[in-house]
Amino acid sequence: MKRYAVLVEGRFDFLYAKTANALLRYRAEEVVCCIDSDNAGKTTNEVMKLGGDIPVVGSFDEAKVFNPDTLLVGIATQGGFLPENMRQCVREAIESGLDVICGLHAFISEDKEFALLAQKHDVSITDLRKPPTPLPFSEGTWRSRKTPTILTVGDDCDTGKMTAAWEMKRQLEEKGKKVAFVGTGQTGILLGGFGVAVDAIVSDFEAGSIEAEIDRVGEDVDLIVVEGQGSISHMAYSGVTLGLLHGTMPDMLLMCHEPARDIDTFEHPMADFKEVMDLYVRLVQIFKPCEVVGLSLITHTESEDQARATIQNYSEKYGIPASDLVRFGGGQVIDNILSKLG
Amino acid sequence: MKRYAVLVEGRFDFLYAKTANALLRYRAEEVVCCIDSDNAGKTTNEVMKLGGDIPVVGSFDEAKVFNPDTLLVGIATQGGFLPENMRQCVREAIESGLDVICGLHAFISEDKEFALLAQKHDVSITDLRKPPTPLPFSEGTWRSRKTPTILTVGDDCDTGKMTAAWEMKRQLEEKGKKVAFVGTGQTGILLGGFGVAVDAIVSDFEAGSIEAEIDRVGEDVDLIVVEGQGSISHMAYSGVTLGLLHGTMPDMLLMCHEPARDIDTFEHPMADFKEVMDLYVRLVQIFKPCEVVGLSLITHTESEDQARATIQNYSEKYGIPASDLVRFGGGQVIDNILSKLG
Repeated sequence: MKRYAVLVEGRFDFLYAKTANALLRYRAEEVVCCIDSDNAGKTTNEVMKLGGDIPVVGSFDEAKVFNPDTLLVGIATQGGFLPENMRQCVREAIESGLDVICGLHAFISEDKEFALLAQKHDVSITDLRKPPTPLPFSEGTWRSRKTPTILTVGDDCDTGKMTAAWEMKRQLEEKGKKVAFVGTGQTGILLGGFGVAVDAIVSDFEAGSIEAEIDRVGEDVDLIVVEGQGSISHMAYSGVTLGLLHGTMPDMLLMCHEPARDIDTFEHPMADFKEVMDLYVRLVQIFKPCEVVGLSLITHTESEDQARATIQNYSEKYGIPASDLVRFGGGQVIDNILSKLG
Repeated sequence: MKRYAVLVEGRFDFLYAKTANALLRYRAEEVVCCIDSDNAGKTTNEVMKLGGDIPVVGSFDEAKVFNPDTLLVGIATQGGFLPENMRQCVREAIESGLDVICGLHAFISEDKEFALLAQKHDVSITDLRKPPTPLPFSEGTWRSRKTPTILTVGDDCDTGKMTAAWEMKRQLEEKGKKVAFVGTGQTGILLGGFGVAVDAIVSDFEAGSIEAEIDRVGEDVDLIVVEGQGSISHMAYSGVTLGLLHGTMPDMLLMCHEPARDIDTFEHPMADFKEVMDLYVRLVQIFKPCEVVGLSLITHTESEDQARATIQNYSEKYGIPASDLVRFGGGQVIDNILSKLG
């Protein structure tokens, strides 16, 4: 159990504070406070409807009262750099003996001032997105893997692949299964404890990097859940997605989709849903059997009745169990995965 | 016109000297000598059946007689580093005022000794595989591109995608067309004069990097030929390949294949040929119309009669013009591309 002070200064919202929000959703018991001067004095529940009564404070000095042991830089930024107004907070945290965990694109462990300061105060700085050294090359170890593996995939960015993967793990664990989680982005790596930020890897080594992380899991689990990224139908990220797909070589896919979405995150009309699913499956089937075992639908813009009708409709149309895993629980999706695990 | 001394020390073969060999095949008039003490005294034709009477010499000192202006490090190495026994040659070349061009994975322009020496002697060091800075992100400029674009693709590594792309350019130019060539590996970048080594790019930026190179071509050509890499059916490289496919967004594909190959370069049975072609086309068709306009077949292990029968067979079976572009010329493949250009 850690005691996180979560730095979200000026960015405590849905767009920039994804990592902080995931921690509040799934590990609230490890968060002692959030730091955001815009919302100082409120609770996290008042700001984000997450985390209950966790206090939001205006500075690191105020955060110290709650005796944190780790500062999490819980935001994303355009360009990926640490904003100037947050440097002072990171500095104070290190000087107060806190470890620092950061999910930004720019690695603060390579920032000279912070690196020296961390050495002086004997604390660690962990950049969640930092690639392994040396980069592992693909060896095709999936050929001898014994543990079933499932990857979340989607037909766009922001279709809930991280959340669906984590919900699947959580709900399967409630059913008594032992499930490993391999993160592939900053939030998943933070929640799961290991993983690799695949989009930060030189493309030649992407498949090998995820393969190496899966190999670290070992055989003592019933299922390996791998967090998906991007989409093979996304013009900017499709390479990342296919590298991840073939690096993972999943037995099963959980397909993530928002039925109400017409235009993708790159302002292109959404591709045909069935076609994208079909391409995923066929790209794996070049190597091994693979099937879509569930549809994870984002329905939060629909009323509950509408949402249940949408889910029913998708399930019948494609012959695959469907649910909104956050809103309604996994239901038949989880049951179907359980049946595959035997 | 450059005057290349080509360093291939101890590696003047088909496996490691690909870049040197491509230069000898397509730009022999720019090569004044090759440096390889194993074959000193021979001609390049005697060693590789390429380049005619170009002399092979045993040291840089002997190379100087031929008045080179550029040293090309024309080999690949395992690990991508410059072998110790070649450092002295690079050193002497710089001290003699030669520019250096290198296709290795490790960038010799970042080697402190060489960087200082190059500065002192006012020569340039060019690493062909060095990514652009800053890395360009995909913007989807294909939506307004007016020039037809063709990408070579394949169902494995080493199916002649670079060579087929260059032959296509050359043979279309003989027919009076103006053709731009965008390289995506060290050899293609060297031959074409620009391009980007896509497998050296952080995966998030791969599509954007090739898009930016295509945008540099401008509209003053009849066709843009993009060199392909890897295969969507290759477990280690498929991410690179799909990033390149969607970064290019080609109107046409030239599918490269070796009919006699059963096992791919990763020791996996070759995927079904039609299936792989179909996947390429459908992955582009999510965004725009695309078709396979020709099959480029590697037939050098077959007799001439066998090879011609194989080509006929493929052409009829798939309903697509086929040829071995190096051995027999482009024939109907080139005619078909010309018909598409109108």
